[in-house]
Amino acid sequence: MGKKLTTRKEDYSKWYNELVVSANLAENSAVRGCMVIKPYGYAIWEKMQAELDRMFKETGHENAYFPLFVPKSLFEAEEKNAEGFAKECAVVTHYRLKTDPENPSKLIVDPEAKLEEELIVRPTSEAIIWNTYKGWIQSYRDLPILINQWANVVRWEMRTRLFLRTAEFLWQEGHTAHASKTEAIAEAEQMNNIYAQFVENFMGIPVIKGTKSENERFAGAVETYCIEALMQDGKALQAGTSHFLGQNFAKAFDVKFASKEGNLEHVWATSWGVSTRLVGALIMTHSDDQGLVLPPNLAPIQVVIVPIYKGEEQLAQISEVANDLVNKLRNVGVSVKYDDRDTQKPGWKFAQYELQGVPVRIAIGPKDLEKGSVELARRDTLSKEIVPQGEIVEKVKGLMTEIQENLYNRALKYRDEHITEVNSFEEFKEVLNTKGGFISAHWDGTSETELKIKEKTKATIRLIPIEGKKEAGNCVYSGNASPQRVLFAKAY
Amino acid sequence: MGKKLTTRKEDYSKWYNELVVSANLAENSAVRGCMVIKPYGYAIWEKMQAELDRMFKETGHENAYFPLFVPKSLFEAEEKNAEGFAKECAVVTHYRLKTDPENPSKLIVDPEAKLEEELIVRPTSEAIIWNTYKGWIQSYRDLPILINQWANVVRWEMRTRLFLRTAEFLWQEGHTAHASKTEAIAEAEQMNNIYAQFVENFMGIPVIKGTKSENERFAGAVETYCIEALMQDGKALQAGTSHFLGQNFAKAFDVKFASKEGNLEHVWATSWGVSTRLVGALIMTHSDDQGLVLPPNLAPIQVVIVPIYKGEEQLAQISEVANDLVNKLRNVGVSVKYDDRDTQKPGWKFAQYELQGVPVRIAIGPKDLEKGSVELARRDTLSKEIVPQGEIVEKVKGLMTEIQENLYNRALKYRDEHITEVNSFEEFKEVLNTKGGFISAHWDGTSETELKIKEKTKATIRLIPIEGKKEAGNCVYSGNASPQRVLFAKAY
Repeated sequence: MGKKLTTRKEDYSKWYNELVVSANLAENSAVRGCMVIKPYGYAIWEKMQAELDRMFKETGHENAYFPLFVPKSLFEAEEKNAEGFAKECAVVTHYRLKTDPENPSKLIVDPEAKLEEELIVRPTSEAIIWNTYKGWIQSYRDLPILINQWANVVRWEMRTRLFLRTAEFLWQEGHTAHASKTEAIAEAEQMNNIYAQFVENFMGIPVIKGTKSENERFAGAVETYCIEALMQDGKALQAGTSHFLGQNFAKAFDVKFASKEGNLEHVWATSWGVSTRLVGALIMTHSDDQGLVLPPNLAPIQVVIVPIYKGEEQLAQISEVANDLVNKLRNVGVSVKYDDRDTQKPGWKFAQYELQGVPVRIAIGPKDLEKGSVELARRDTLSKEIVPQGEIVEKVKGLMTEIQENLYNRALKYRDEHITEVNSFEEFKEVLNTKGGFISAHWDGTSETELKIKEKTKATIRLIPIEGKKEAGNCVYSGNASPQRVLFAKAY
Repeated sequence: MGKKLTTRKEDYSKWYNELVVSANLAENSAVRGCMVIKPYGYAIWEKMQAELDRMFKETGHENAYFPLFVPKSLFEAEEKNAEGFAKECAVVTHYRLKTDPENPSKLIVDPEAKLEEELIVRPTSEAIIWNTYKGWIQSYRDLPILINQWANVVRWEMRTRLFLRTAEFLWQEGHTAHASKTEAIAEAEQMNNIYAQFVENFMGIPVIKGTKSENERFAGAVETYCIEALMQDGKALQAGTSHFLGQNFAKAFDVKFASKEGNLEHVWATSWGVSTRLVGALIMTHSDDQGLVLPPNLAPIQVVIVPIYKGEEQLAQISEVANDLVNKLRNVGVSVKYDDRDTQKPGWKFAQYELQGVPVRIAIGPKDLEKGSVELARRDTLSKEIVPQGEIVEKVKGLMTEIQENLYNRALKYRDEHITEVNSFEEFKEVLNTKGGFISAHWDGTSETELKIKEKTKATIRLIPIEGKKEAGNCVYSGNASPQRVLFAKAY
């Protein structure tokens, strides 16, 4: 707890950075672009992991673990994928240090311990995994393979921001192998739908489902499905992607199977992932100038109880009520913390839990003892009310659902108010610069037009929507025919 | 399922390697010394993680995540730790690849993308973590810090073996910071005790608790606590270590705190870890010539049901009984798989589940339908019995405990029979070469003697026992005074 946060209006980007650090979510490390995820931030990620893992397993996926390193020769096997990631790869070239002969307290790389072949720290694992699948797949009986991996990956980005873009990040990456194109496409779509469900229902963040244009597609994919969310500054954030990889990796790694009919065919593939970037989306979607706002599903502490007292005797009386409440709330599955530390004042605690986004705060003081009540404050609405002690458990149970829904609805309202249909390039630029958000416009389907628009406005095509109306029209830039509107936005 | 395993007697090491691969636990990868942990092996690791994580949290620890890379200048800050790991470090020197001008289909390291400072892929995280803690600790109020990290680490070992010693492995590493020496020692001891409880009660592997001699101590530790287990070939395996690091890292990274009394003091530290190596210990402790034997606590599938049938109608009748059983067993928390695949014969399935160590196998055939019974087989004893259908749920519930205990007791019996007290160096060598196991002998406490014994016998001091009798005597090698017996063994 220190000084107040910069407000979102003053400087959205500064507000975000200050919030991440002051709410104890993460901080920069001594390694350029790599972050330290602090316990409070990591606890949120653990909750996300647990729910995603449950959803993956429910749909028949198993976890496994593949090596951190990719030998250069494998890395370059699938050409487009290699091209896409080559510019941001951390490369291991040596396997030993030795004492610096000129300064014995220092270590230097031992030139005699140079690797014969360089190792790439995985930016994504298609290459190493498909090289492995080659040994696992002979017949249609070996398919499908439905595997997910929880791992760290490294992409040497030049401009990094906590959670949103870091040189190392944590993620899950699913890699599946199928006997048919139809099945692989169905898998890629299924996983994009699972991501949408997770992000909407569990994180309270509304998303739009779509596919990517060729420019924005994953390197090596035939089709990239995605979900996009809108942040409070009107910029879009890609929250998850699922790729139909066709037979590209099977061909690059020579992975064939004997079909039921006895033909030897290349295997069909998908991959899909979400990362710690979602924590950034969570922060930016719900939080306010007072700090973090967390949906109950992801809050490490759902309810905090703060005693307001003078002297030991009063504290003892309040603690009796509080501890009883703690037990009752835990019994109904609510995570609760009773903060009776005497090293900090109640006001400090209030501000701290507000900053850290604890959904419900309960204060108990001497007057509450007299009246058999407590003061209950909601983080999402910053409202307070007096609640009789006997009604708290039901009240809190109800609030867990209500707050979750309120956050989603609030974000949905903002998002829906920030999708604007435009019909000319002038209007496009005007809306982008004044209101921001998603701009729904006709596009002629060419990369050329997309890049021109990007060059002139910094907006890119976030997605070609899957759902909703599909009327034809004319491209806002070229005037050429367009089969449906697509969504443009500036993006994280 | 292929040919039979090499037996333990024929070639223990070969038996182990074949078993790991054929039971679908793990396999070697295209990266020297790095393994692929396959879904069945990973599922065991996940169960270990879940229980350890629960135990860590119950004792007040939180998870966090620190960078994969350690800048060289930080890596070398704590001299002994740096010295201990310098010889086996993967070093990142570049951050980009580019197209090979001589061969455009190939990539080469871009010499212009050389890092100013090399990055070490963490072999352990004390350096990066203590550099971070420096920013977190000012006062005694900031202590203790009780953090654990689940991560991958890399040690460029020259001789690797699946699970037991791999260049990359998965582990957890706890890193705690304390205001006093006493508190830090208590933490290190507590975590060693937690490891012992976990390995004994959950994995069914008996261990002995002790401290390491100076030679075997963790690089940078003041004291290393450890638990050691005995494998079926008479070799010891270090199953977990917990280090009291004194103020070594606090001094190296200048981490001080203002004490309650207002003095500025260096912080006291511990670190502790167990790794995927424990999966190797699990395999080697319980398994037999038929394959893997898993304690029920760690079995991804605790019960498998195999139908024995001719024709669809019979299968339908059997499936009705089987599915009912599946539901009933799941209701009491038993994980169960009904394998009604028609692509494999029952005999193949029996052998496969035996190889994969499923604790209980239930077969249901036409005769069982008539009699209202099933055939139940235990993997640990390879025994079979006929059980009335109405009694199965209770029977299986009981077996989950019974098998867990039986495996532990069997391993304990073997271990206890392989601790031999010797009183001369001749006897030492004789026992080591004939019977193996732990050799309980007096030692004069010097590194010189320990190294001489190692040179002559390949046995090292596995630990100085914490519990048990402590009579004085004379060193088996030098004849000098010894305060207590220590345990020697050849080790993994």
